[in-house]
Amino acid sequence: MAKNVIGILGGMGPAATADMFRKFIQLTPAHCDQEHIPLLISSIPDIPDRTRCILGGGESPAPVMEQYVKQLEEAGASCIVIACNTAHYWFEQLKTKSKVEMLSMIEATVDEVVQSGKQRIGLLATDATLATELYKNRLEAQGLTFIRPTEEGQKAVMESIYLLKSGEVEKSVALMLKQRDELIRLGAESIILGCTEVPIILAKEIEKAPHLYVDSTLALVRAAIHWYQTH
Amino acid sequence: MAKNVIGILGGMGPAATADMFRKFIQLTPAHCDQEHIPLLISSIPDIPDRTRCILGGGESPAPVMEQYVKQLEEAGASCIVIACNTAHYWFEQLKTKSKVEMLSMIEATVDEVVQSGKQRIGLLATDATLATELYKNRLEAQGLTFIRPTEEGQKAVMESIYLLKSGEVEKSVALMLKQRDELIRLGAESIILGCTEVPIILAKEIEKAPHLYVDSTLALVRAAIHWYQTH
Repeated sequence: MAKNVIGILGGMGPAATADMFRKFIQLTPAHCDQEHIPLLISSIPDIPDRTRCILGGGESPAPVMEQYVKQLEEAGASCIVIACNTAHYWFEQLKTKSKVEMLSMIEATVDEVVQSGKQRIGLLATDATLATELYKNRLEAQGLTFIRPTEEGQKAVMESIYLLKSGEVEKSVALMLKQRDELIRLGAESIILGCTEVPIILAKEIEKAPHLYVDSTLALVRAAIHWYQTH
Repeated sequence: MAKNVIGILGGMGPAATADMFRKFIQLTPAHCDQEHIPLLISSIPDIPDRTRCILGGGESPAPVMEQYVKQLEEAGASCIVIACNTAHYWFEQLKTKSKVEMLSMIEATVDEVVQSGKQRIGLLATDATLATELYKNRLEAQGLTFIRPTEEGQKAVMESIYLLKSGEVEKSVALMLKQRDELIRLGAESIILGCTEVPIILAKEIEKAPHLYVDSTLALVRAAIHWYQTH
């Protein structure tokens, strides 16, 4: 078996996991099958809803995530990434229990923001990622200005994310575009796509102006490919 | 952990595995993450080249495939599918050693061909899938007429498949389209996309005339979803 294998803890949601898989393939300079990065992907979506747990006190996803991380380790993963921003609320807890390397999507994304040199940073993410200040704290620690949607706007962001999860793509796109525009109006020079569903929702827009966005999925994939190439 | 999990033995190549993952998501009627089919995906692409082994006596992929099937089983897969037609040359051997259910892509595809009621069936596949007569034997056993590209044409099909694997999409599409047309000229009423790279190469054409094709990836995904829903 391949010496190093990247494990993806996914299923939150499956479409975001597939998007991460596709980005691994696209970003790997490969001339044949055998040159691609070895991946083990867990897309077992019965993990309790992350946002509902953080905001509403619903069932914690942590025990199930721990179990799936362990499963990836036992199946041979030597470095694990999580294809969900909100789930990173439990990142340190999972990392402490894991026997292998784990790379943080939030750290990888903030690194790319810092490298971009931009100062006023907008965020499109779930209510729970906002509430837990996963991005806000790290951006402000770097001296950057953090810009979030209005209370009303954030409701639309959240509705858009759940519409994508339920397969309602068109309605989802329309809602998210409006909030993207609103962040720019509020002064954002760069927008973090800080929920892994958002790069799927805004895919066509990202093609038109890629430098406007920092895609958390892409940032983590780049970090994981770098890890693979240096280990 | 979810009671039943579908394991995908992939990496042959990674893009075909990602295409299968995407099709699982698209074909599952789900309103939220938790309603999607639980998947464990092995995309470890160091499996020796299948066609080279069958035609040139290169290293056999069977021992590595066996190992990855075992790994999927140990990680909790209760039914395993292989995202590669050519690899089905070793299907019975793998199935005999596996402790869990395995569904054949070739059987699932031929079932869909038979259901279509069409009689003259073309095949776009690797040299090795042609040489091992994986499809020819089963189609003729059903009283159907099997139509393959000319010797010259098959060289172009094979070149197109390896061009996709090396990331040269445009050239790959141009070569494959010509052979698609050639199969129709030879009398094919329906064309089996009998290599998992081919539905990726012909994606835009399939959208225009979906009923002309039987996509081996889609056929296996439908069979696996059916298995999941009835177990």
